[in-house]
Amino acid sequence: MEWIEVPDEGLKLRDIRRITKRDQAETAGIREQVENIIAAVQEQGDAAVREMTQKFDGIWVENFLVSADEIDEAVTYVGENFIKILEEARDNIQQYHERQKQETWIDTFRDGVRLGAKYTPIQRVGVYVPGGTAAYPSTVLMDTIPAHVAGVPSIAVFTPPGKDGKVNPYILAAARIAGATEIYKIGGAQGIAAAAYGTETVSPVFKIVGPGNAYVAMAKQLVFGTVGIDMIAGPSEVGILADETSNPAWIAADLLAQAEHDRRAAVFLVTPNAALAGAVEAEIERQMEELPRKDIIADSIKNYGKIFITKDRKQAIDIMNLIAPEHLEIDFAEPESYVEHIINAGAIFIGAYTPEPVGDYFAGPNHTLPTMGTAAFSSPLGVYDFVKRSSVLEYNQQAFVQIADKVAQFADVEGLQAHGMAVRRRMK
Amino acid sequence: MEWIEVPDEGLKLRDIRRITKRDQAETAGIREQVENIIAAVQEQGDAAVREMTQKFDGIWVENFLVSADEIDEAVTYVGENFIKILEEARDNIQQYHERQKQETWIDTFRDGVRLGAKYTPIQRVGVYVPGGTAAYPSTVLMDTIPAHVAGVPSIAVFTPPGKDGKVNPYILAAARIAGATEIYKIGGAQGIAAAAYGTETVSPVFKIVGPGNAYVAMAKQLVFGTVGIDMIAGPSEVGILADETSNPAWIAADLLAQAEHDRRAAVFLVTPNAALAGAVEAEIERQMEELPRKDIIADSIKNYGKIFITKDRKQAIDIMNLIAPEHLEIDFAEPESYVEHIINAGAIFIGAYTPEPVGDYFAGPNHTLPTMGTAAFSSPLGVYDFVKRSSVLEYNQQAFVQIADKVAQFADVEGLQAHGMAVRRRMK
Repeated sequence: MEWIEVPDEGLKLRDIRRITKRDQAETAGIREQVENIIAAVQEQGDAAVREMTQKFDGIWVENFLVSADEIDEAVTYVGENFIKILEEARDNIQQYHERQKQETWIDTFRDGVRLGAKYTPIQRVGVYVPGGTAAYPSTVLMDTIPAHVAGVPSIAVFTPPGKDGKVNPYILAAARIAGATEIYKIGGAQGIAAAAYGTETVSPVFKIVGPGNAYVAMAKQLVFGTVGIDMIAGPSEVGILADETSNPAWIAADLLAQAEHDRRAAVFLVTPNAALAGAVEAEIERQMEELPRKDIIADSIKNYGKIFITKDRKQAIDIMNLIAPEHLEIDFAEPESYVEHIINAGAIFIGAYTPEPVGDYFAGPNHTLPTMGTAAFSSPLGVYDFVKRSSVLEYNQQAFVQIADKVAQFADVEGLQAHGMAVRRRMK
Repeated sequence: MEWIEVPDEGLKLRDIRRITKRDQAETAGIREQVENIIAAVQEQGDAAVREMTQKFDGIWVENFLVSADEIDEAVTYVGENFIKILEEARDNIQQYHERQKQETWIDTFRDGVRLGAKYTPIQRVGVYVPGGTAAYPSTVLMDTIPAHVAGVPSIAVFTPPGKDGKVNPYILAAARIAGATEIYKIGGAQGIAAAAYGTETVSPVFKIVGPGNAYVAMAKQLVFGTVGIDMIAGPSEVGILADETSNPAWIAADLLAQAEHDRRAAVFLVTPNAALAGAVEAEIERQMEELPRKDIIADSIKNYGKIFITKDRKQAIDIMNLIAPEHLEIDFAEPESYVEHIINAGAIFIGAYTPEPVGDYFAGPNHTLPTMGTAAFSSPLGVYDFVKRSSVLEYNQQAFVQIADKVAQFADVEGLQAHGMAVRRRMK
């Protein structure tokens, strides 16, 4: 890991952006290919989806919709023990997200003036779930449950079939448990296109959420506007605030857990204690050897592992607020007392017994979090992402008369005479 | 206007998308030019901004920051009468947006498990305000006040100077009244670049909001990721639900008000009453002649004016929900009773005395609304856009021990062994 001695006067946003910068994913040449896939699905519907599934997933799928029998089979395969774990995770996630529900309100602001906000769930959403070597049932839970809690009446999962034409059983089980209403064996850019524009068998959705490879990410960007999308997630990261009370083996284990996600994952240790930092680094070297994904970990740690040595805890927090990490662990003594000073972080994990994996799977808050410093201006996925607000306005005649002339003068200043006329006609 | 007789079985989303489709704005060739402007500002800072201001705005500006004297002068120019109107609008907008504030909460969910959400204002935002022939002080109010209510400590306005090196006085007055902390005479793509990356004189912001021409819109798309942005607004639209109790002259005036915004603005009248529709059309022809912007209006009405004749009020509402208009006026008898059935609309204007201009300037709800059908999945600008949420998680040792094995099993299923190890080490 690279060591950065923070000077007494601290660092600036510009410095932090340079230090924490990561390489861009390679996307050259993808755009045109994805545009063609989307155009084909728009024009030829199911036929194009079948052809592309053959081409990219290596299997001809006649019926995309996963049957109830297939889901039953998956649930049996997954087994009672893990189904119970999924259900407990679902209950925790659901309970936390219930707190995010917002109620429609309409109030009288002045005599004859009623204003409000009407909340309505998005009527149909698509959840993209990657296939491939690793299946992430946790992603199915985290993307589907908030939509379910929001009251979205129709939640369609899109995921690529394996070469045997089947979907990973953990994904199917998680989708049922989370409350998905349909599951389609359609992956890649063709899955995003089918969700956005619809085909003979797929009704179009209004919003698409969920992670995916570069093709999926590009397709989401291209259909944005026709449908809503969640954020295009960057590679993951963790920042840990530690001091002399921290256990170096645990800190190292948490940094390694983050690093195993991706060669472009980043890990930040920010501490006023250089001895602790040294001990953590030694532990990383030792623990890494035991881990199956050590090649990925080694790349991530080498390129994007940073240790900031600060003059004190306060400066450590200032640095962390500039980093704005996706995951932030506070492992200072009396960790709760620092929460109020955290300005930028996707999720805040307090104390030694709240390692980041607790939040990935089980605790309840969403694991879809803003990455790459975007926590400075954006938020975790939540129920908020699956409802929309309509403003509500009502003036009666008397209240209208009182303001009409001011509204008309405003329109005059802006040079919009028809706006003024719409008001003045009602005064005659 | 084009008349559409809605069949008994109604219309589908696909039909509505075809009928309401608008031409794309011409943006070919802009991308590269804007990329170059952004790169120049990133590399040369203020020097590049000065050169580009000379080139695009026709004036050499040495100091971009508007002085307090300049603002005082603008306030005097605008005059006491209109300052009072601006202040009353500000108070209304502020009062409405206060209702959108969210409070940080941390609760005990189970023994030893505390979860919550911490709300923090974005620390610095940029508000882009177009210059040119028409100045829109209402936009300054609508984009700045929600940031101010959210508690954003630093709000910088970016707007192009006129050829005389000055900013429109209505914009300056509105910016002061709304609570902007700085105003910079920098417009166009160079304004967006300066806001996103900073220069010697401009500190970078974390989010940029506000409308602009094609260059500004492209620049916002290109800096997105480094900073947050609001939606790229499309051309405006209104949908009106009317029946035999409606006043055709008023309905016509409201459609004309929307049409004067832009040649690509769209206006939709949805009614079960063909006689009313005919009367409205006659009124449009008559009233149009009196309006200074009649060329723009005529284009908009001709290309994007649609009248849907439905079998009843219920079907009219179904059609309107598929259109998902930016502005929706309910001018049926007993208009309040239909609000609960509205699913998709940016803002709902109830009754004959709440014409859309009341919401543009004065009533309080935001006038920055989702356009082009995006109200099906997105919301008006609000305080929500200027705060972000951090999830908060805390397990004590006992609570951790109870779930550790389940979390580790989850990690095993997902093939993330380092995640499992981070948990298991704490069990030893």
